[in-house]
Amino acid sequence: MESIKGLKVEKKDINHKTIISVGKEEIGGTRLTIIAGPCSVEDKDQIMNDAKLVKSCGANFLRGGIFKPRTSPYSFQGLGKTGLDMIKEAGKMEDMPIVCEIMSIEQLKQFASEIDVIQIGARNMQNFELLKEVGKLDQPVILKRGLSATIEELLLSAEYIMAHGNTKVILCERGIRTFETAYRNVLDLNAVPMLKSLTHLPVIVDVSHSTGEWWMVEDLSLAATAVGADGLMIEVHDNPEDALSDGMQSLKYDVFKMLMSKVEKIAKVVNKSL
Amino acid sequence: MESIKGLKVEKKDINHKTIISVGKEEIGGTRLTIIAGPCSVEDKDQIMNDAKLVKSCGANFLRGGIFKPRTSPYSFQGLGKTGLDMIKEAGKMEDMPIVCEIMSIEQLKQFASEIDVIQIGARNMQNFELLKEVGKLDQPVILKRGLSATIEELLLSAEYIMAHGNTKVILCERGIRTFETAYRNVLDLNAVPMLKSLTHLPVIVDVSHSTGEWWMVEDLSLAATAVGADGLMIEVHDNPEDALSDGMQSLKYDVFKMLMSKVEKIAKVVNKSL
Amino acid sequence: MESIKGLKVEKKDINHKTIISVGKEEIGGTRLTIIAGPCSVEDKDQIMNDAKLVKSCGANFLRGGIFKPRTSPYSFQGLGKTGLDMIKEAGKMEDMPIVCEIMSIEQLKQFASEIDVIQIGARNMQNFELLKEVGKLDQPVILKRGLSATIEELLLSAEYIMAHGNTKVILCERGIRTFETAYRNVLDLNAVPMLKSLTHLPVIVDVSHSTGEWWMVEDLSLAATAVGADGLMIEVHDNPEDALSDGMQSLKYDVFKMLMSKVEKIAKVVNKSL
Amino acid sequence: MESIKGLKVEKKDINHKTIISVGKEEIGGTRLTIIAGPCSVEDKDQIMNDAKLVKSCGANFLRGGIFKPRTSPYSFQGLGKTGLDMIKEAGKMEDMPIVCEIMSIEQLKQFASEIDVIQIGARNMQNFELLKEVGKLDQPVILKRGLSATIEELLLSAEYIMAHGNTKVILCERGIRTFETAYRNVLDLNAVPMLKSLTHLPVIVDVSHSTGEWWMVEDLSLAATAVGADGLMIEVHDNPEDALSDGMQSLKYDVFKMLMSKVEKIAKVVNKSL
Repeated sequence: MESIKGLKVEKKDINHKTIISVGKEEIGGTRLTIIAGPCSVEDKDQIMNDAKLVKSCGANFLRGGIFKPRTSPYSFQGLGKTGLDMIKEAGKMEDMPIVCEIMSIEQLKQFASEIDVIQIGARNMQNFELLKEVGKLDQPVILKRGLSATIEELLLSAEYIMAHGNTKVILCERGIRTFETAYRNVLDLNAVPMLKSLTHLPVIVDVSHSTGEWWMVEDLSLAATAVGADGLMIEVHDNPEDALSDGMQSLKYDVFKMLMSKVEKIAKVVNKSL
Repeated sequence: MESIKGLKVEKKDINHKTIISVGKEEIGGTRLTIIAGPCSVEDKDQIMNDAKLVKSCGANFLRGGIFKPRTSPYSFQGLGKTGLDMIKEAGKMEDMPIVCEIMSIEQLKQFASEIDVIQIGARNMQNFELLKEVGKLDQPVILKRGLSATIEELLLSAEYIMAHGNTKVILCERGIRTFETAYRNVLDLNAVPMLKSLTHLPVIVDVSHSTGEWWMVEDLSLAATAVGADGLMIEVHDNPEDALSDGMQSLKYDVFKMLMSKVEKIAKVVNKSL
Repeated sequence: MESIKGLKVEKKDINHKTIISVGKEEIGGTRLTIIAGPCSVEDKDQIMNDAKLVKSCGANFLRGGIFKPRTSPYSFQGLGKTGLDMIKEAGKMEDMPIVCEIMSIEQLKQFASEIDVIQIGARNMQNFELLKEVGKLDQPVILKRGLSATIEELLLSAEYIMAHGNTKVILCERGIRTFETAYRNVLDLNAVPMLKSLTHLPVIVDVSHSTGEWWMVEDLSLAATAVGADGLMIEVHDNPEDALSDGMQSLKYDVFKMLMSKVEKIAKVVNKSL
Repeated sequence: MESIKGLKVEKKDINHKTIISVGKEEIGGTRLTIIAGPCSVEDKDQIMNDAKLVKSCGANFLRGGIFKPRTSPYSFQGLGKTGLDMIKEAGKMEDMPIVCEIMSIEQLKQFASEIDVIQIGARNMQNFELLKEVGKLDQPVILKRGLSATIEELLLSAEYIMAHGNTKVILCERGIRTFETAYRNVLDLNAVPMLKSLTHLPVIVDVSHSTGEWWMVEDLSLAATAVGADGLMIEVHDNPEDALSDGMQSLKYDVFKMLMSKVEKIAKVVNKSL
């Protein structure tokens, strides 16, 4: 890809790879990163319970939305600061770094320091002013691919962050928009080897958004592990039927536990561990 | 479309239509809105000259980018405040309202009051935090359809703005992303009658981005007028070969002038005037 | 487009254009070709009545499906030979050439000589064996663009026909498949000027399939005329509610008549006539 | 999916699955089907050599194109009958069933009886007349998903075959067309669990066409195995640089051998064997 030649995102040689440390955890090394938790933080009991259970199944990062980018202004928009306090407590209790989406420069300025890994969502992948500000931090950031962003555009958005000084960028494939209506998105696993050949950055896969159906998540998690992803992001919810967002794609714990045991076996074949 | 039933964007009956006033101009009435000017404001002579010439051809709004959402961080990012001062002067000289893209809440707070019509670009169509802030203003805003945004998503993004109080929303079709590589985007003119049947808001077409090729702009401008658009947005540049952005899709003046004379004739057939 | 340099489809210079004669009619000249009629031939009264009425509104070709490419094997598949006899009689009565889709080499061998203009449908655009056989005839053929065929692929499919000797190819844009679900297809009017710049062949637009909604057909017919198409293909049905196929996108006569009067005015602006 | 309720393709209950026998081989059982060989049969030495080597690596079916659906009429169109004789001999020598694409009813009538598994290519997935004829045979057929065919359309095309009597249908995901240009197609692995939940038919994956790049084939083969596919189709060529078609996506033997050893390990995790 000519356009990224010489850029900071570019993989200089076959062994060039970046491992990003977050507390005791690493992203991009031989251990698979498992980021799990509910779509949204909804109340304290829920997130405390979620944290305990995903941890017991082997997840090493806790996710939970506190600001939610919803298509309609009338959908649940997240608990904000209140939710952040809840997930921070849950993360501390279980000794798990937390991953939260940030949607604006204001939120970034107010809350970034309280979040271990900042997530930039698909709809903000080309919110260039936000990318520039994220670039001024020294903090890991998961950059999700836009719904119809090309590989090249994803890398150039990562470059926006790196050009401003922050080198701790994790790329995230999360399904693309196509003509197919049988599922929410099409998981593009071609993106994983392609990105890993072009860039030294870690590449993870958000399996839940890629399918939109909870019963497809296990199969696609195995596929994402087999194809060489550095990590998986999976929505897990104690009670998916009552979730305030994305219940359809959230796993119950027993399903998540089963999934993890299979992921572990696939990981071994590709020289990774849980 | 079930999801917009009862919303502020919804057309309540066949005669429900909103006309938005900007100084002496109106958008959404029987007079076709022509927004023309360079992709980017580059220097004072250029924008003064551009303003004079597009005005003389019949344009009634002056466009010119001062903050540019560029895919690469190393591309020209716009002149910012300096550029704004230039286009303001050009607009005042020619008595034309100015249209400028705003990319963040910060820029909005600093500069909105100096711009007649705020433009929210395709890449920010689902930058919901920005939409909420735009919603707090009492100022016309052009909301561009995202590269792969559905009609429903575009309307729900407009609803974000209206739900926060600002009812002066103009929708803009600007070409969508498809599999086709022969042109930059595919102009989706189906969107115009569909939007006009669903919503009372004005609908304009950015013909330059929809094609990406200057020599296609005239034909598609005639089509957009014929299909019933309330206005056209067209990039015109004194010297396209030297433009700092989007030169390929910018028209020279003589081409723009010819286009305007044909647009006028088509407009008459559909009961509009220039 | 490098891949078509030197091919038979290529436009050699700006004045290179092919006009195809069908009886007293011409396709590709200054008179707009209007191909109208029902989606399917359903019974004799219907097609006789349809022929009379579309002719009276100004159509110069009669369309009507006798073999129908339906997604499900259990949908109405057309009347076949019986239907052909009916539409032939209707065409003769009104002195209009008939346009019918052919779906296989067998049908071609049996019926081509009884049809004035053969139509190759979108789903057969890359049925290369069929294209080769069509190429051996000396008979006009409308080649429809595949649902997700690129401009280049459409031209190379036309080249299949021309390479085998048949130079009477008419290209037809009929809407492409995208992510949008608000309408059946997205009419790609960018294709018209692009094709007309690359090839000397006539280019027509099937407006009915491009939208899938009868109430959008008028607006898009005006747009297709304004953009420079050589002709329009429009589904008209006496009683759309009872049509055996595609009733949703078929026009009643009074709507078609109104449409034709407006198309005529737009045509004049672009130096065409009805 | 409402439209397939009650159809022959429908999975009636969770244990409903069809296993298709081809000589001593089975497709859809616990043993993974590996279909390998060159894109096109080019000469006798090549195909004999290919057959021996893919067999030695563990492939159980031999593929090789004899009629090639090429976008341009001037590209290599396959050796036809001569090529068929060559691949038949190679298959017999190595005791492997052969898989060849058939592009028309004529070819079907002439050659079907000499081919073990007929392949209907992506471009003919909605060549309904061909599907009807294939439906009259009692012979296994691989039906490839069209470039932009939905899951529903693929299943309804399979229904065309089954409705005419042939129940031996194998579905094949082969990558879909999207906006992404970094690779030839996007492998849609969501399709595998979705198809397996809707239908009782075997589902295989053509990994070579799904990526278009030989160096991506291994990673995606592991993913396709992990996701639960019943088989893989992989292009292997002794000398990819000199291949008459699709050399870019063909594997050399040593790469294919390595791939097979990893596929075997992944297969075990999902309770399959080679």
